[in-house]
Amino acid sequence: MQSLQDKAAEWSGVDTTLAFAVDDDGVNLFQKLGLQTFINLSTNFYNRVYDDEEEWFRSIFGKSKKEEAIQNQYEFLVQRMGGPNFYSQRRGHPALIARHRPFHVTHEAAKRWLHHMQQALDTTSDIDDDSKIKLINFFRHTAYFLVAGVESRNQNQMPCKNASGSHPCKNF
Amino acid sequence: MQSLQDKAAEWSGVDTTLAFAVDDDGVNLFQKLGLQTFINLSTNFYNRVYDDEEEWFRSIFGKSKKEEAIQNQYEFLVQRMGGPNFYSQRRGHPALIARHRPFHVTHEAAKRWLHHMQQALDTTSDIDDDSKIKLINFFRHTAYFLVAGVESRNQNQMPCKNASGSHPCKNF
Repeated sequence: MQSLQDKAAEWSGVDTTLAFAVDDDGVNLFQKLGLQTFINLSTNFYNRVYDDEEEWFRSIFGKSKKEEAIQNQYEFLVQRMGGPNFYSQRRGHPALIARHRPFHVTHEAAKRWLHHMQQALDTTSDIDDDSKIKLINFFRHTAYFLVAGVESRNQNQMPCKNASGSHPCKNF
Repeated sequence: MQSLQDKAAEWSGVDTTLAFAVDDDGVNLFQKLGLQTFINLSTNFYNRVYDDEEEWFRSIFGKSKKEEAIQNQYEFLVQRMGGPNFYSQRRGHPALIARHRPFHVTHEAAKRWLHHMQQALDTTSDIDDDSKIKLINFFRHTAYFLVAGVESRNQNQMPCKNASGSHPCKNF
């Protein structure tokens, strides 16, 4: 059986080593970019997500408050990129797949999530090109890692139903 | 609904802040203890687990090779305690709850897991008392975090059945 990370690599086109180049020797992305940049990035990202014209995508986040989504994301990123462990002090382990269980994480959702993240990265100040490439590779791999994780969990259940019931759950 | 970290804190008696004191300012447990100590700790731990006289507990690990279990654990610990990201380079995100899905993580199993880990900590050389306390608090909280995560996933399924079918699945 293909592992989660192998599926993520295949679907995202980003292998595991490249995805985790965020940890490369001597570079601490938190120290390089600073707390405010991560707050700005997550705010920019979720402003786009919550205003998305695509109702099926917006509805995935319908049960979460935008402010909480922003805080969860930037605290996770700060911790993962070598900064203080704000996330774990407040919420424990990231447990990424389990915490995404309430959401409808499909291939199509991952693609749209990444579309918004690319735009957020491109329009947030003070993110240099090298960091931008490392972050988008990390996000690409991670998005499909979550698709693989949630699919694997759902394999014996009804896999495709969202809150509104209107979105066909495609795996492409 | 109680969060995963609140359940973990209640069941383990270790609150989230204390559990993540492994990240306290200025202390990097990987630098303090070194790679070999983590390898020794995980080897010591899994030697005890795979030799456990309790068949119901030993059988939880029956499908995994001991050498792989040791490597997965020490690579995770090294990464989590501030060392190189060996784990993610090889396997992607830790995704602790999802990766424990194949195992029968009950309260009783957590208790026995912690019994062996305490013994392993007490009999591995070069772990000072302060580090030992931080590590066991981290392990206690994490063990029950996983019980909570796996229980939450199973809440609409048959919750209690192990490989041999012989162990009563108690939540105490």
